[in-house]
Amino acid sequence: MTKCLEKFRYINQKVKQYEEALAVLYWDLRTGAPKKGVDIRSEVIGTLNAEMFKLSTSTELGELLTELEGKDQWSKLSEIDQRLVAETRKDYDRAVKIPPELNHKYVMLTTQAENKWEECKENNDFASFESYLQQIIDITNEMIDLWGVKETRYDTLLDQYEPGMDVKQLDKIFGELRDALVPLAEKLSSSEHQPQTDFLDGQFDIATQKDYGTFILEQMGFDFEAGRMDESVHPFATGLNAKDVRITTRYLEDDVTSALFGIIHEGGHALYEQNIGEELIGTTLATGTSMGIHESQSRFWENIIGRSRPFWNRYYKDLQERFSQLKNVDVDTFYRGNNVVEPSLIRIEADELTYNLHIIIRYEIEKMIFNEGLKAKDLPQVWNKKYEEYLGVNPSSDAEGVLQDVHWSGGSFGYFPSYALGNMYAAQFMHTLESAMPDVWEKVEAGELQPIKEWLTEHIYQYGRMRTPRELIEGITNEPLNPKYLINYLTEKYSEIYKL
Amino acid sequence: MTKCLEKFRYINQKVKQYEEALAVLYWDLRTGAPKKGVDIRSEVIGTLNAEMFKLSTSTELGELLTELEGKDQWSKLSEIDQRLVAETRKDYDRAVKIPPELNHKYVMLTTQAENKWEECKENNDFASFESYLQQIIDITNEMIDLWGVKETRYDTLLDQYEPGMDVKQLDKIFGELRDALVPLAEKLSSSEHQPQTDFLDGQFDIATQKDYGTFILEQMGFDFEAGRMDESVHPFATGLNAKDVRITTRYLEDDVTSALFGIIHEGGHALYEQNIGEELIGTTLATGTSMGIHESQSRFWENIIGRSRPFWNRYYKDLQERFSQLKNVDVDTFYRGNNVVEPSLIRIEADELTYNLHIIIRYEIEKMIFNEGLKAKDLPQVWNKKYEEYLGVNPSSDAEGVLQDVHWSGGSFGYFPSYALGNMYAAQFMHTLESAMPDVWEKVEAGELQPIKEWLTEHIYQYGRMRTPRELIEGITNEPLNPKYLINYLTEKYSEIYKL
Repeated sequence: MTKCLEKFRYINQKVKQYEEALAVLYWDLRTGAPKKGVDIRSEVIGTLNAEMFKLSTSTELGELLTELEGKDQWSKLSEIDQRLVAETRKDYDRAVKIPPELNHKYVMLTTQAENKWEECKENNDFASFESYLQQIIDITNEMIDLWGVKETRYDTLLDQYEPGMDVKQLDKIFGELRDALVPLAEKLSSSEHQPQTDFLDGQFDIATQKDYGTFILEQMGFDFEAGRMDESVHPFATGLNAKDVRITTRYLEDDVTSALFGIIHEGGHALYEQNIGEELIGTTLATGTSMGIHESQSRFWENIIGRSRPFWNRYYKDLQERFSQLKNVDVDTFYRGNNVVEPSLIRIEADELTYNLHIIIRYEIEKMIFNEGLKAKDLPQVWNKKYEEYLGVNPSSDAEGVLQDVHWSGGSFGYFPSYALGNMYAAQFMHTLESAMPDVWEKVEAGELQPIKEWLTEHIYQYGRMRTPRELIEGITNEPLNPKYLINYLTEKYSEIYKL
Repeated sequence: MTKCLEKFRYINQKVKQYEEALAVLYWDLRTGAPKKGVDIRSEVIGTLNAEMFKLSTSTELGELLTELEGKDQWSKLSEIDQRLVAETRKDYDRAVKIPPELNHKYVMLTTQAENKWEECKENNDFASFESYLQQIIDITNEMIDLWGVKETRYDTLLDQYEPGMDVKQLDKIFGELRDALVPLAEKLSSSEHQPQTDFLDGQFDIATQKDYGTFILEQMGFDFEAGRMDESVHPFATGLNAKDVRITTRYLEDDVTSALFGIIHEGGHALYEQNIGEELIGTTLATGTSMGIHESQSRFWENIIGRSRPFWNRYYKDLQERFSQLKNVDVDTFYRGNNVVEPSLIRIEADELTYNLHIIIRYEIEKMIFNEGLKAKDLPQVWNKKYEEYLGVNPSSDAEGVLQDVHWSGGSFGYFPSYALGNMYAAQFMHTLESAMPDVWEKVEAGELQPIKEWLTEHIYQYGRMRTPRELIEGITNEPLNPKYLINYLTEKYSEIYKL
């Protein structure tokens, strides 16, 4: 290894280590750190963050990158090192464009705004939140100017979460999706064959729910020696490192499947992080390649596998054994009851079909903010109008409307599309998997989930950030992202359930 | 504030923040971090430690200290800043003598060795642990050479945990203690009045134990909004910051008081850390002043208060309410049964009298390692011989012999004496408290523990590292550490219980 490469690798490893330490601190804050310690802890996080920022924007790193990109060095780099240099270059160029003071201002503002948001959501008080939101929009616009604009301003934000994605592609993809799903949802709601759901009400012991969730995670191949499951108000998955991947869930005593599908969802994220190739461990390539691909895995496991009929044909009996209340509910009733499509107000409670419409609404609004100058003060009105138009529902308050999500208060504009991209990637991957493994559904029905995990590891997980989202989808499915697979999957599945 | 003081304060705060981050990482490792992630986590700990080490040994800090120690600046410093400079000087002088590579090697080795020890203890496999232990001894010896030796090599280690303590003093103090306790223990074991203990056997629901332990912690004044209680194989307390102090415990289903006394013990440590003065928070003075004083607090609460007759006169009914098995056991029987003196193999299960002998054995062995060159491979033999000699018992395996404690695997040589020092400090403090608050035992019997916590806060807790152990003991009790208070306390208490 050249001296130069060695130094570069060393800095990169250190950045990764700071990321891990910070991830532990955040995990701790979210899983029960004592209230009174939070202020001091935030300062510790601030200090480590600043240290990491310093490392990732140092002149030394810039010089090392330039040297390694030179013809001499580049040709001698391994494939991994080439990708590591290329990805670090992208992160570096993006980070150095933001003056530390602006970054600090942004961090302080979004930290305050997240707290403010929680309060305003609780009090249904958009007016008090509006000025924070407008300030975040303004700073984000400043940053867009510093980062630079290619086609549209919003593209610059999208690229952070889904490298290579832009408004031009998304308009087309989301347009197709919307045009197919809006009429499909209407057909379903006017069907005479509405699934029965009353059996879902009741009291379901939480320890037993946990036991069943653990069992399902084990079936998926989650490695409990390289991960753990805890509880938190807002469930999440976090890969501290590939050998320590944690998920959290939130149990509801009156709902037998809410926590379970959450566990399968976060479990999908976790399988991705746990199965990154050994050769990438310790580098910043050892994580998911984009938010969209990450969501494709959580949603693949939660919806395509976890809400499928073959899955319940296999695993329902284990649930019935644990909850005697379900003794007289047959598997078909249970399956259909867990696949109800119904337009609703709250994204995180939406079914897998209308969920996409929630995302498209947010996408269109974010575009309006950054490409057309929509102001924070006008958001509630635009929001409510779009919910009426796309889902036929009317928020009775901003708390269940424009204030429902945390993302904007944290400055995460451009993130929302990842969720719908995830659904589309997942369906497209499944289409390919069905050809590559024709008996995949027989396997699910037999409780053999490992071949599926292995296929995903072989084609996706092991690569971490070694392949871009586009390289993955085209390499695996032989075509670019295409919404028709999700549309076909949803149409087929729900036509059967609702007997269209 | 002068520029110089400002810079010094900033570095000190940063060191404290790194300490907090590291404390979270250690806490996490010990309360259930996934096994497979430990190696990578160790490297993260190594990196943060190195960073903290760099900060605390920087030339800049050295220059700032020299400047602040100069006549001009010194006289203008507040009492807190003077102590902060003085304590930092001690830490600095000690730290700069260790080359960063050696420090890093030490941190990595001890982190790995702690895990190895756990495995080896479980498998009763001293042979596999021996080479780790010898390496830790070797590095420690290297460090002793770098730190420098005054009277004996072992003094250099003792001074880390109990500033001002040395072999000369300890030989005298421990000698007195041993000479009083060995015959006392013999008298007790030949008494006709052995306490009844059969009622302690049984099955005691763990959730109920936890509930009772939480109740007792609340009674002691533990602030659950500034702390939490978890489970770990080896119970400990850790003050991440004064607003986030955590303890752990280990429940045994067949023992109703083992976890409870552990909780009271760690709770004592926690009260110390939670009640450090506000003005010290954020500085490295915001922690206990020495391990001996820290142990005096855990042992004060566990033994002097928690194993006293007045305590159980008040709190036994709450235990009986929770465990119907105890319905027919009266409080006197319960009190005596929890104060059995019996030579045994395991330190952490020992009674408060013979406990001191377990410590004296370790003290003598550590002295042999560092002052006489005893090798790791010879430890089991020496260990077993001393247990025979002092306690008349023979370990049937290394797991219940030399492998029982975690300390050596973490490199904490010189730490053990703190426990016996703690017992002596505690008894001496209690002697003074009984004069200052003549109705202290009536208060305990009435469940009024807060005045006691407040007295300890006023005289000890609030000062953090603002006073040395010697300043505390002499300031509060008007004499230096004197083993007679512990000897008197034990003699009186156990003569009554065993009707000597």
